[in-house]
Amino acid sequence: MINIGIVGCGNLGRAAAALLPQSTDMTLTAIFSRRKLPGCLPFSQIAQWKGKLDVLLLCGGSASDLPAQSAALARDFCIVDSFDNHSQIPTHFQNVDKAAKEGATVALISAGWDPGLFSLFRLYGAAVLPQGKHYTFWGPGVSQGHSDALRRIEGVADARQYTLPQEVTLSEALTPFQMHRRHCYVVAKAGADKEKIQQTIRQMPGYFAPYDTTVEFVTQAQLDRDHSGLPHGGRVICTDTESTMEYRLQLSSNPQFTAGVLLCCARAVSRLYRRGETGCKTLLDIAPADLTATGREELLKQML
Amino acid sequence: MINIGIVGCGNLGRAAAALLPQSTDMTLTAIFSRRKLPGCLPFSQIAQWKGKLDVLLLCGGSASDLPAQSAALARDFCIVDSFDNHSQIPTHFQNVDKAAKEGATVALISAGWDPGLFSLFRLYGAAVLPQGKHYTFWGPGVSQGHSDALRRIEGVADARQYTLPQEVTLSEALTPFQMHRRHCYVVAKAGADKEKIQQTIRQMPGYFAPYDTTVEFVTQAQLDRDHSGLPHGGRVICTDTESTMEYRLQLSSNPQFTAGVLLCCARAVSRLYRRGETGCKTLLDIAPADLTATGREELLKQML
Repeated sequence: MINIGIVGCGNLGRAAAALLPQSTDMTLTAIFSRRKLPGCLPFSQIAQWKGKLDVLLLCGGSASDLPAQSAALARDFCIVDSFDNHSQIPTHFQNVDKAAKEGATVALISAGWDPGLFSLFRLYGAAVLPQGKHYTFWGPGVSQGHSDALRRIEGVADARQYTLPQEVTLSEALTPFQMHRRHCYVVAKAGADKEKIQQTIRQMPGYFAPYDTTVEFVTQAQLDRDHSGLPHGGRVICTDTESTMEYRLQLSSNPQFTAGVLLCCARAVSRLYRRGETGCKTLLDIAPADLTATGREELLKQML
Repeated sequence: MINIGIVGCGNLGRAAAALLPQSTDMTLTAIFSRRKLPGCLPFSQIAQWKGKLDVLLLCGGSASDLPAQSAALARDFCIVDSFDNHSQIPTHFQNVDKAAKEGATVALISAGWDPGLFSLFRLYGAAVLPQGKHYTFWGPGVSQGHSDALRRIEGVADARQYTLPQEVTLSEALTPFQMHRRHCYVVAKAGADKEKIQQTIRQMPGYFAPYDTTVEFVTQAQLDRDHSGLPHGGRVICTDTESTMEYRLQLSSNPQFTAGVLLCCARAVSRLYRRGETGCKTLLDIAPADLTATGREELLKQML
């Protein structure tokens, strides 16, 4: 059995805990949180668990938690994280790799669907179609980062942002702004200046400008009733003149699917560690067979 | 540079030779054929090339060539084959594994898209969605095995069989017969009994019975004009109650795409061999990063 520890009790951590019993070769040994929560151990005590956990799933956020946490914990534990700040991945990889090599552990970063499975399919596309191009569409789905950005705006009580793929003809000149539009459901505080809120959103660099952005004001009751879920998905298309490969995801719960990826990555990490490997990995470094509990004979029969 | 040898000068071998220059880290060193063909070396001389080729691409057929050839050549060469007789894969794996371990070589079998890439995506689906089910649809596309079967029928001069996916609601009870239908374009010999040909086709066990099979008689000119290509494709769908993963291929040339898979597998095989690994592998055993010539730093930037 693989002893799993979970760090963080937000959407992702709770989803991982709920999903874990589906994997008969893993057992949930401990959940750690900075907050006082029933069933969670204080994060401050995690050092005492060194040697008692096979893999730690780090379920914190990429903005504040993981940049420091992954490298710090990789010295004492094998870890899996879902670091998804694309531009910062090379730096994060270096930091975690150094820590994991010094601690003789195995760390797998940026597990999830993008980065993660979508990265895999971009790579398979590039390997099989060396002269092909790849395109990634996100959505339709809720972007938690963009929803958070909306909530930080003055006069906004609550909000939810949907990223929506555009119907476009594929071409190398396409920008993310042409491939996607953004729909914001916003609950304004009493007496707030809705016109000003709209302008602030549309002009927010990086997040909304220059995207085709729609702002729709709703009541808190409407938001809670119609937009409480976290659906997401997207497509990776790799194509050359002769062949087209397309990988499509449709997820009713983004955290639950991401948790599923983290769990099979934990299985692979525990195997690499037992083989004496050390250092930082990504899904691109993992032999697919190491992600599953199914043995070789069954794989040859069922999968090939 | 990776020195590649190609065995077989049919559709697949010629496609591999034509595609190879797209990979700047590989060079085509020799092509072997049993037939006397310009630019091809006699297959009987292949033993003299031991130690002069990094990887041999075996581009023969799964029915007659590969079962003996792969194991025999794996004693002296690292090989990649596209063995696609699904039910025989476990036996083929054992034979090739034994030979490759005795010869201290690396062999990768069943490379292509199914078995091959579709196997990968069935595995990723099963790993991420342990309670999910996977479904594979083939086509629309030309099945060379079924076209050959038609040509062996008395009174048939030439033929082409298209496998077509059916629009069905996914359920565990689905059989391949319900998921696909078959359309046969048949050129009858002068004076042949077309009624008898139709019956023979519809009743051919395994190949056409009990599929929904259409037989359409055409002239040789029509067949050559409209059905000379080898397009193919299909879909793998993995789904549970919450999430759906779909992988779709659309190929204008089945041999060309398969050759692209063989070539990136050859790259991986040469790396495994340099690391001192031996024995038989499949795509399920290959870390995706080993399929590409792109270095780690670029992969982290471009793919993740």
